Amino acid sequence: MNGAQALFETLVAAGLDTCFANPGTSEMHLVTAIGQSARMRPILCLFEGVASGAADGYARMLDRPALTLTHLGPGFANAMANLHNARKAHVPMVNIVGDHAPYHLQYDAPLTSDVAGHVRLHSAWHRAARSAQDLSRAGAEAVQAATTGAGRIATVIAPANFAWEPADGAAPPLPAPAQGRTSDATIAALATLLGNGRRTGLVLGGRAQRAEALVMAGRIAQATGARLLGETFPPRLARGAGRVKLERIPYFAELAIEFLEDLDQVVLVAVNEPVAFFAYPNVPSRLLPERCAIHELVGLDEDVPDALARLAAAVGATTDAPLQRHELPPIPEGPLTPAAIGACVAKHLPANAIVCDEAITCSLDLYRATEGAAPHDFLAITGGSIGIGLPLAFGAAIACPDRQVVALQADGSAMYTVQALWSMAREQTDVTVVLLNNASYAILNVELARLQAGAPTPKTLTMLDLGNPVPDWVSLAKGMGVSADRVEDTVGLERALAQAAATRGPKLIEVMVARR
Amino acid sequence: MNGAQALFETLVAAGLDTCFANPGTSEMHLVTAIGQSARMRPILCLFEGVASGAADGYARMLDRPALTLTHLGPGFANAMANLHNARKAHVPMVNIVGDHAPYHLQYDAPLTSDVAGHVRLHSAWHRAARSAQDLSRAGAEAVQAATTGAGRIATVIAPANFAWEPADGAAPPLPAPAQGRTSDATIAALATLLGNGRRTGLVLGGRAQRAEALVMAGRIAQATGARLLGETFPPRLARGAGRVKLERIPYFAELAIEFLEDLDQVVLVAVNEPVAFFAYPNVPSRLLPERCAIHELVGLDEDVPDALARLAAAVGATTDAPLQRHELPPIPEGPLTPAAIGACVAKHLPANAIVCDEAITCSLDLYRATEGAAPHDFLAITGGSIGIGLPLAFGAAIACPDRQVVALQADGSAMYTVQALWSMAREQTDVTVVLLNNASYAILNVELARLQAGAPTPKTLTMLDLGNPVPDWVSLAKGMGVSADRVEDTVGLERALAQAAATRGPKLIEVMVARR
Repeated sequence: MNGAQALFETLVAAGLDTCFANPGTSEMHLVTAIGQSARMRPILCLFEGVASGAADGYARMLDRPALTLTHLGPGFANAMANLHNARKAHVPMVNIVGDHAPYHLQYDAPLTSDVAGHVRLHSAWHRAARSAQDLSRAGAEAVQAATTGAGRIATVIAPANFAWEPADGAAPPLPAPAQGRTSDATIAALATLLGNGRRTGLVLGGRAQRAEALVMAGRIAQATGARLLGETFPPRLARGAGRVKLERIPYFAELAIEFLEDLDQVVLVAVNEPVAFFAYPNVPSRLLPERCAIHELVGLDEDVPDALARLAAAVGATTDAPLQRHELPPIPEGPLTPAAIGACVAKHLPANAIVCDEAITCSLDLYRATEGAAPHDFLAITGGSIGIGLPLAFGAAIACPDRQVVALQADGSAMYTVQALWSMAREQTDVTVVLLNNASYAILNVELARLQAGAPTPKTLTMLDLGNPVPDWVSLAKGMGVSADRVEDTVGLERALAQAAATRGPKLIEVMVARR
Repeated sequence: MNGAQALFETLVAAGLDTCFANPGTSEMHLVTAIGQSARMRPILCLFEGVASGAADGYARMLDRPALTLTHLGPGFANAMANLHNARKAHVPMVNIVGDHAPYHLQYDAPLTSDVAGHVRLHSAWHRAARSAQDLSRAGAEAVQAATTGAGRIATVIAPANFAWEPADGAAPPLPAPAQGRTSDATIAALATLLGNGRRTGLVLGGRAQRAEALVMAGRIAQATGARLLGETFPPRLARGAGRVKLERIPYFAELAIEFLEDLDQVVLVAVNEPVAFFAYPNVPSRLLPERCAIHELVGLDEDVPDALARLAAAVGATTDAPLQRHELPPIPEGPLTPAAIGACVAKHLPANAIVCDEAITCSLDLYRATEGAAPHDFLAITGGSIGIGLPLAFGAAIACPDRQVVALQADGSAMYTVQALWSMAREQTDVTVVLLNNASYAILNVELARLQAGAPTPKTLTMLDLGNPVPDWVSLAKGMGVSADRVEDTVGLERALAQAAATRGPKLIEVMVARR
């Protein structure tokens, strides 16, 4: 047995069985060991950002880590943008990144770089293996680190020779870390607070947005009159017909400030204080009114259902909040405005679907339209790093092969990790990509105005415009092995969505977005 | 005038006029300032790795920096893999990366990350601007740093508010740093050394591979009997008919060791000692024989033509080395083996073309076949980080609009930065992409065997195989707005190459590679 074999035996024993991989020469013994493992499933990604985004989607759905396998510093660098999103989603993930043999580093060969320097930026835990035997020990530690709290990113640097040198055997699994729990004093204090008659917001984030946690939070709101607020970009939100409804905090800071201005106090549930996404001239970074007191029920990494259940009991909350009714907006005839697209998506969304949202400027209309659609999980872009949508949908589909995944996908963002389509085709994942082609970084046109940057010249606008040429997404999808249709009106979109829902496997619907 | 305007005025005054951009919200004032600048040319890239790779290609051809503009940590992370190659190519480059306003950082908004931590990994010089006024000063310093020695990567972190706050005016340009020069004592010592009768290699790298430097090196070799050796992956090598011929050091370590085993001494000219690309079991990292003495004529960052001219004078070298004759391999009929592809490319290569090589497993055959083709510049993948080929070709074409660029491009590598095709279409650059479709990470199949990793299982091979589905590059190119043809035999390839050479603008030829 070599170090690589011992490592994957360790990881499989710890319950990891899925590896999103983009390996290189220094990982060939790792690849061989995966090939020899009866349980490890390798999934080839043609760009590392697909691997990390897919591991994020996988973890958001299953609450357990997938593996990624990448090649040296540059390979890890390509994974970083989506690791940033994964870090902000607080998911568990274990990355294995190859490095040169330590004795080879001193020669500064072309692919030599500061791998630890790369890894450090996006990993809560990381270390390089120190020997072939230590490689599997590092793997066991990584799993333990990754499953701490809500989830962490843990990265093992695997020098090539430690993969090929002999090892004694797999490392024993390490115990899962205990989860923190809200104190009785906090529960009692917050129960009192919720009865003080002041205008209260219960702000839900992370795992407080799962279906059962929402039921409990809804009862608290129902009993106390608190507003039920949800973070702007949830890792995974249970919503749609039959679910407890929450008010999502708006993205634009000006709107969010208005939206929150009635609040005297907030209770944070697995979330940080809401803040502006970007700084803008003359707009504050903090969104809550100055008078608003901020309290925390439970931290992101602590036991969320427990805290909500105990607070509900403490305030005597037993009545369920009214649930979202199944109601669909009417579908207008004609061009595909964002609202019309939303109405079509809402009608054809299968029950228990997974919706991955990287619709950017179209997102708000689609979100509103699908409020009363069939119940679904909604996965957002948690860290604002675009290019997560397609990989996220792919990873969620690998995690939940029996659920249909719908990716609501802006064109500009899709381009960053377009290679995800190929992996969808290879794995025949049941993903419908609703590709919103507005031939623009439309959000940047909006932001340009908000930032009062001055009148744009035609040259300025070339930097925000995807026209000339307009990417042809039907051809791009076909090139990646995914069947695709272009639609220009609601009849066409309805037909394409119905077809997609009725057939398994990946498909892309290129929606030519009309101006509102 | 705001900080952004002062910055771009400073950069334009310093001679920078090309900006490969992929901006976001925090760069909107920078984008506006570019739009207002009469001389700065913005070039939109749909992925940051395209921007950094293009800036590399631009700098390799013009020996002056292009700008890149990217968005926060994740945007810079996407640029890193090609910055790694650029760093190993020793090119000048100035990166501007946006960051949140400093007062906004404390709130840990979703897109907050350690921007300086990212930047540090791939920049020889970097700093964050400290005020609106300081932003242009940082720009001037970056240009100075970038033009130090052969070239450096210099990065300015531009907090959003320093772009929008008022500034007094542009910063004065800083003097270009003086270049180091080889001492007289070194010249004298090496002149003596070259006459000692021992078997000598003159190893050329970096700027020693430009046409005029090669003439001088050729004379030294002619006068002293030294072998003229070239680094394996040159940033820019002048070759083809009428050029001084050198022996390229092989990629595979075993072959390189054999190739170098007769040498008693080497003289390094703007290059480091040759070492193995990767570590392999039972293969040494150093490639020169143990007895071989290593001397340096001139460092990478020093004045290379000067050192070569003085050494030539010191050894009395006045006779030119024999030049490469114009000779083309015969073109076989039928399937497109790498050798057959090379023969076709050689025949149709226009004079003074720029050849960007990311052909990977096909590279050696193509290199051999084009030895006697029309004179051309040859740009290789200097850092081993794949995904450089298409951006490099794009950037070289922007730098040299009157020269035809031919990208010899493997399929697996092309996929990493496939978005470069769109920028080629928008800018109508004269690039012919010879896309080598072998539906495989073929090099990894070779490396797997070399690494003696054990017999691969079918599962192992799925990680090295781009079949199922085979990407359809004609559709991908079309989706990006680039016209494309698929060819399966030498007649088809010849026809497509002739057409491409006869028409301006980008085109892709998908070459279905036959097994040898």
